[in-house]
Amino acid sequence: MKSQHSYSESEKQAVYRVIKERRDMRHFTNEALEDGLLMRLLTVANQAPSVGLMQPWRFIRITDNTLRAAIKTLVETERNITADLLNQRKNDFLKLKVEGISECAELIVVALPEGREKHLFGRRTMPDMDLASVACAIQNMWLAARAEGIGLGWVSLFDPIELANLLNMPEDSRPIALLCIGHVEQFYEKPMLIEQNWAKAAEVESFLFENTWQEVETTL
Amino acid sequence: MKSQHSYSESEKQAVYRVIKERRDMRHFTNEALEDGLLMRLLTVANQAPSVGLMQPWRFIRITDNTLRAAIKTLVETERNITADLLNQRKNDFLKLKVEGISECAELIVVALPEGREKHLFGRRTMPDMDLASVACAIQNMWLAARAEGIGLGWVSLFDPIELANLLNMPEDSRPIALLCIGHVEQFYEKPMLIEQNWAKAAEVESFLFENTWQEVETTL
Repeated sequence: MKSQHSYSESEKQAVYRVIKERRDMRHFTNEALEDGLLMRLLTVANQAPSVGLMQPWRFIRITDNTLRAAIKTLVETERNITADLLNQRKNDFLKLKVEGISECAELIVVALPEGREKHLFGRRTMPDMDLASVACAIQNMWLAARAEGIGLGWVSLFDPIELANLLNMPEDSRPIALLCIGHVEQFYEKPMLIEQNWAKAAEVESFLFENTWQEVETTL
Repeated sequence: MKSQHSYSESEKQAVYRVIKERRDMRHFTNEALEDGLLMRLLTVANQAPSVGLMQPWRFIRITDNTLRAAIKTLVETERNITADLLNQRKNDFLKLKVEGISECAELIVVALPEGREKHLFGRRTMPDMDLASVACAIQNMWLAARAEGIGLGWVSLFDPIELANLLNMPEDSRPIALLCIGHVEQFYEKPMLIEQNWAKAAEVESFLFENTWQEVETTL
């Protein structure tokens, strides 16, 4: 049965379109964002669900260029360590552009705050549900950015302790994302790691089980 | 500068609308979903970003009613343990409806698969980026469901080891969400935990820093 609460066909199409066309961007031009746009993205982040309504997201806007350069150096260091561990894929990995920190209009560090242990609701057995909430917030930003025609890339190639030190973060807080946000010449047709032959994507049917951990014919 | 890649005003409005109106639902009616809808939701989950394109999401559809009842019992057990730990808020907590497992049309367990340690890209220093990817996938489902007029609730009140045992999951896999999906009489106007006076939400301005971990006047 179709829901009486369904959006119009054109609204639904817009939602499906943005989900499909969102890309993890690493290539940016250096034009500034229009006024108000960054605030719109941060506002939708704060509309994300959060476990026990704890709103465990903090956003550090990097406006100091020396700091931005220091962050880029951290990423470069981690990129080289990862490359060495990838053995025979090292050279392929090093050909990939993994961040756009120098070029993007805005660099935002997203972090979990200190004092999270007091939030028990939905976290007693799985304390990392706070990270899940922040990821939902970032996905909201990603989708809104794509609808605005703006690229966003989530970079996780960094040592979180080093980054926390650089930003004077309290001891039990934790940075989880470097978001590069900015204008792009074009959005990748497919995820960049597919276009660059780093990885292949599987269809969703490969990931579906029924009642138990075993591939079965579903009736879906 | 406005982007040449921007969607139309009406498309952008649809995207902002769905982000704003998405709710973590616990109240469902028991009508079945229309044919194809669950598959559309799983398809958008698989369009989420994932670290190193590892697609670390698995979806177990629960169609066995005995199993559904056993899962509800697990949640009830965890709800009571959490309640006891909440001391003076215990009674308020126990008044909240925390799941809609018996009533919802579809119950989906979302899990991280086994064998994740081989995926190093973006995870060497932060292995839990796989959880972040799955959260983005669930947020996609949540938004598409809302546009379809269908409620979705993410329940994390369970012991993951017990749930993994119930579903015969491999040792280093891990369930992270019980998704209740179904028709609803109405969507909450505000998040249910706000409507029920469990929590207050803060505006995004409280969560913004600039260059360092300190509240400052930003120019945003």
